[in-house]
Amino acid sequence: MIEPNASGHSEEAKLSKASASRFSLYLRHLDRLTSEGVQKISSSQLGQALDISDAQIRKDLANLGSLGQPGIGYNARELIQALRQRLGIDRTWAVVIVGVGNLARALLRYQGFRKQGFNFVALFDSDPQKIGQSLEGLQIHDLNYMPAIVRQTRAELGVLAVPTGAAQMVADALVQAGIQGILNFAPTVIRLPPGVSNVGVDLAVQLEQLAFQVHLAHVGQKEE
Amino acid sequence: MIEPNASGHSEEAKLSKASASRFSLYLRHLDRLTSEGVQKISSSQLGQALDISDAQIRKDLANLGSLGQPGIGYNARELIQALRQRLGIDRTWAVVIVGVGNLARALLRYQGFRKQGFNFVALFDSDPQKIGQSLEGLQIHDLNYMPAIVRQTRAELGVLAVPTGAAQMVADALVQAGIQGILNFAPTVIRLPPGVSNVGVDLAVQLEQLAFQVHLAHVGQKEE
Repeated sequence: MIEPNASGHSEEAKLSKASASRFSLYLRHLDRLTSEGVQKISSSQLGQALDISDAQIRKDLANLGSLGQPGIGYNARELIQALRQRLGIDRTWAVVIVGVGNLARALLRYQGFRKQGFNFVALFDSDPQKIGQSLEGLQIHDLNYMPAIVRQTRAELGVLAVPTGAAQMVADALVQAGIQGILNFAPTVIRLPPGVSNVGVDLAVQLEQLAFQVHLAHVGQKEE
Repeated sequence: MIEPNASGHSEEAKLSKASASRFSLYLRHLDRLTSEGVQKISSSQLGQALDISDAQIRKDLANLGSLGQPGIGYNARELIQALRQRLGIDRTWAVVIVGVGNLARALLRYQGFRKQGFNFVALFDSDPQKIGQSLEGLQIHDLNYMPAIVRQTRAELGVLAVPTGAAQMVADALVQAGIQGILNFAPTVIRLPPGVSNVGVDLAVQLEQLAFQVHLAHVGQKEE
């Protein structure tokens, strides 16, 4: 779930976030296809695979310039390149993680990030027992070293995997250290200054959305 | 991010998912406020805290029936009860997790789920070394026992925390065992039969959305 950003939520901003979210899905699917040797794809094939309407896909992809050929479809590699460029991820991003628990371990071992250009470059924790240790080749640092290490590693994004009570304090420290966007897994809304981006992932909300869908299906309000 | 459900995506369905997503946010914030002793809240206070427009909040809450009092606001506990009822979580849900890695460990230790009515009742894995062991008081079972254990525990929801390659096979097994909704953390689109709900959480997509926002801020296209 993408939380509204502190900079406002005009209809335009909302639309662009929704498109960006679909662009990520297209990208994920095209990566898979090309790894399987597929070279061409039509909007209807993409739509069927992702359960998105053909019209929506064509509208989204038109946004990328004139890429497809009528009757032939899109060159998968060209489309990937265009999507990555449009999403601003046709480059690598250095990312730090604060809070080295099970979630951080799961994120570090998740294969998909590096492939998408996200490189974890440093870990931080406040637990003296963890500080100085290494995980997946990365040292765990004291929070006090954040400004120096963010500067050194040129990290731009921070992942917040700390308990709720520490979230705002750590977010403030990340911003002070020069981080420009925060992915927040703590189940709380954090406040960031204008210009610093903020995406919240509340796992309980995701499970609630699922329960809500099952509930709707039960009470028969769900359209088929 | 909430993926489109296999049952279609009319404008109405989309709206209801967007509202449900905001309802979860309201609920999370109200839970926090009541734990701090707050009893009354106005729509503008709620809006400010969550960075959502006052008009949007009033429209959403009107959906719950006539709850607020002009000039006084909403009774926080009443509002929580109404939101939980509307979301279908004014009861407990039994949840199984398939794939016992770091993500499963993080989910099991996440405090928020039980409070919201989600009880983890069983774990499954295909690794013979894990099967038979316990984690947070729950035994790890062989996938073959899924139908029996889902029946025994009356589990309705399943969390898919397995590698991409195993996701569809495990999802099919969950559906066969009687699970009615799946929260999928594998970075792939899974196909479920009509009537089984599907919410996907792709962590790389979330990080891409963040990178996209930072990218927009850099290129100066972002509205302030």
